[in-house]
Amino acid sequence: MSDNQAPKQPTRRGFLAGGGALALAGWLGGASGVARAAAGHAKAAPAKDQEAFYGPHQGGILTPQQQNSYFAAFDLADTAKRDDVIALLKTWTDAAGRLTRGQPARALSGQPDKAPLDSGEAVGLATARLTITFGFGPGLFSKNGVDRYGLAARRPEALVDLPKFNGDQLVPEKSGGDLSIQACADDPQVAFHAVRQLAALADGVANVRWVQTGFASGAPGGGTPRNLMGFKDGTNNPSPKDPALMNQFIWVGDEGGWMKGGSYLVARRIRIALEHWDKTELGFQQEVVGRYKDSGAPLGQKHEFEPLKLDAVDKDGNPVIPDTAHSRVASPQENDGARILRRAYSYNDGANFTAERWPPWRQGIEYDAGLFFLAYQRDPRTGFIHINKKLAAMDMMNQYITHVASAVFACPPGARPGGYIGEALFAGL
Amino acid sequence: MSDNQAPKQPTRRGFLAGGGALALAGWLGGASGVARAAAGHAKAAPAKDQEAFYGPHQGGILTPQQQNSYFAAFDLADTAKRDDVIALLKTWTDAAGRLTRGQPARALSGQPDKAPLDSGEAVGLATARLTITFGFGPGLFSKNGVDRYGLAARRPEALVDLPKFNGDQLVPEKSGGDLSIQACADDPQVAFHAVRQLAALADGVANVRWVQTGFASGAPGGGTPRNLMGFKDGTNNPSPKDPALMNQFIWVGDEGGWMKGGSYLVARRIRIALEHWDKTELGFQQEVVGRYKDSGAPLGQKHEFEPLKLDAVDKDGNPVIPDTAHSRVASPQENDGARILRRAYSYNDGANFTAERWPPWRQGIEYDAGLFFLAYQRDPRTGFIHINKKLAAMDMMNQYITHVASAVFACPPGARPGGYIGEALFAGL
Repeated sequence: MSDNQAPKQPTRRGFLAGGGALALAGWLGGASGVARAAAGHAKAAPAKDQEAFYGPHQGGILTPQQQNSYFAAFDLADTAKRDDVIALLKTWTDAAGRLTRGQPARALSGQPDKAPLDSGEAVGLATARLTITFGFGPGLFSKNGVDRYGLAARRPEALVDLPKFNGDQLVPEKSGGDLSIQACADDPQVAFHAVRQLAALADGVANVRWVQTGFASGAPGGGTPRNLMGFKDGTNNPSPKDPALMNQFIWVGDEGGWMKGGSYLVARRIRIALEHWDKTELGFQQEVVGRYKDSGAPLGQKHEFEPLKLDAVDKDGNPVIPDTAHSRVASPQENDGARILRRAYSYNDGANFTAERWPPWRQGIEYDAGLFFLAYQRDPRTGFIHINKKLAAMDMMNQYITHVASAVFACPPGARPGGYIGEALFAGL
Repeated sequence: MSDNQAPKQPTRRGFLAGGGALALAGWLGGASGVARAAAGHAKAAPAKDQEAFYGPHQGGILTPQQQNSYFAAFDLADTAKRDDVIALLKTWTDAAGRLTRGQPARALSGQPDKAPLDSGEAVGLATARLTITFGFGPGLFSKNGVDRYGLAARRPEALVDLPKFNGDQLVPEKSGGDLSIQACADDPQVAFHAVRQLAALADGVANVRWVQTGFASGAPGGGTPRNLMGFKDGTNNPSPKDPALMNQFIWVGDEGGWMKGGSYLVARRIRIALEHWDKTELGFQQEVVGRYKDSGAPLGQKHEFEPLKLDAVDKDGNPVIPDTAHSRVASPQENDGARILRRAYSYNDGANFTAERWPPWRQGIEYDAGLFFLAYQRDPRTGFIHINKKLAAMDMMNQYITHVASAVFACPPGARPGGYIGEALFAGL
């Protein structure tokens, strides 16, 4: 990295040394590392590039979106003991708290005859607003009809298996999962580092099932980021700054039992046929979205945040925003008021060979890129499922996009210091 | 993106409007876009997040490393006409000049009945120090023994096909290529956007063969970035700030004919067995590298940039830096003084299922991650090939890494304004 590009944040090393907490400089520094690690539990003043881990809600949901994401889904493959799951969640909680403070995942010994307790690639990097968000998939509660951990009775009603939607082409190995971790940060290496440590800590209990990297590039002046279709994405999101909206649509309330204060995450890997899209006329692109590409304003209007005028018609009596435009079909007005909090990342996984199975039988290399759609909601039945049933059937955008992977997770409330993620689920068992 | 994370650079829109050049705000703005596009050729004062495109050398070689990279190799698949290749290079040169100034790849019409001339996802983003570096693979000069473009006699002697190295497990579809484009920027969306536009402009002449994303995360205070092994990577690079060194080792001199002022790029996709590495004792990791993990100093020394003391022995007479340590085997001292300019990016392409073919027959999901090794040199025969022959045979690191893809490209000198990349190659034909 060039000096003139250096961000202004303190380094992990610098911040931590200065704050009197665990100095990462000492992570390999011999026995003194133990003492420093112990000191690492002392409370440090939060730096401006740190997001709180402990609290009533998990981080990474309402947190202003970071630029990079690394998501991993896990299978609980190697144990039938509930206590192993609880121990893992305690370990993960402690490690996540440390990582989000810019510390290594575990207290370190620095002994040369031991494998390092942290893989080290985040040493010296900024904390980069790292958040770590955990989720529980249906398989934690029962799998193939087996109640492995005695939790089947505690499966929330809202944690439904997603139905098959029209047009789904889901790859099973990249879908589902018993547990999930999403790390978001303003540095891709920091995000991956976090998941890599947590995955290593799961050894013998849970194995990685699938992973997905993502990025979201924002304009320097702020504003709604554009996705790979070149359109602003997220304009119609409910504002995370509006607690009443969040309580109504995002956070689970009293109805949720142990999930109160949590939220349900739906993840969909949506491949976009960029080559096809790029050859589509601008006018039609805008009809597909229902918005202008440049401004993000609804068709027929001027400004991005003006409400959709779904009743407006042109001089021939045709709707200004077509009946099958994405923004119309997804709108709360057409979905009994349903709203979800979209927190999507673009993904770019290279390029693959593909061959069409219809005339003109084209074949060649295609980008494996698109949108890693992530949305939080109070109840998937009245949220994503309600909206996507309509989208899957009607959305004009479907000729350019394909849902190729899918998962749903119950993201429990945040942990209190000294507690652990999911504690309420296991209470009294 | 949150406001508090907004970088300080001007936006593309803001900069361009302020500079009197093409306003991206007008890219979809109707017929006036044509006039603005014409004005876009006017010279604008370079902003601090812009790197020069035109000059004696191409950008992206000595340029301080940006945080993100998108690399694409192309096959010249659809034409046997030299003029088509020349026309493509002219188009690419013009577009690359525009993109690196924060403009769209082509002058825009904004007509709704035409496909947009820019896919749009970089509108509003910073220019992000975008560089675009072009290369010519062996296939441009002859392919399968056919001299398609009458260029076989102009193939530089130094542009050799790389030999098969010990341990290579190369995937042919991800290797080679007749042409290459590397876009580097401090924003992944800006880098991908650039290649996406250039690939679209190649329609009918060249097709994407393979692509690779990469990232390099630096410490806020500067310094050598760490790779995914957690070690500092690039300590021993010759300094790009030393013109004599660059002329000696990186830039082609009078010996190169039309390549004078250019450089040869070797690209290797090196998968790292992270799971295996993470379980390796710290002491052994350090012996493998020949350096301390924390400081990056050579074994037996204190500071990162101290020279390797290859003759030092411990009290038992064993070398302090083992005979097969990576840094020893790669060192100029052991390679007749050979030096190359490494400009590597980490890659992180998700995770795949793998099954061992030897006891204990483990199987499971493995990270598809590692190092996208990129190195520039005056002559690959005395540069990468010389060094890697020894590394492939002796490097202790080979038990953790596998070269899975490979390519070599002649990167011609930079273009002059009004000229085009590779102009000297075609002169007089």
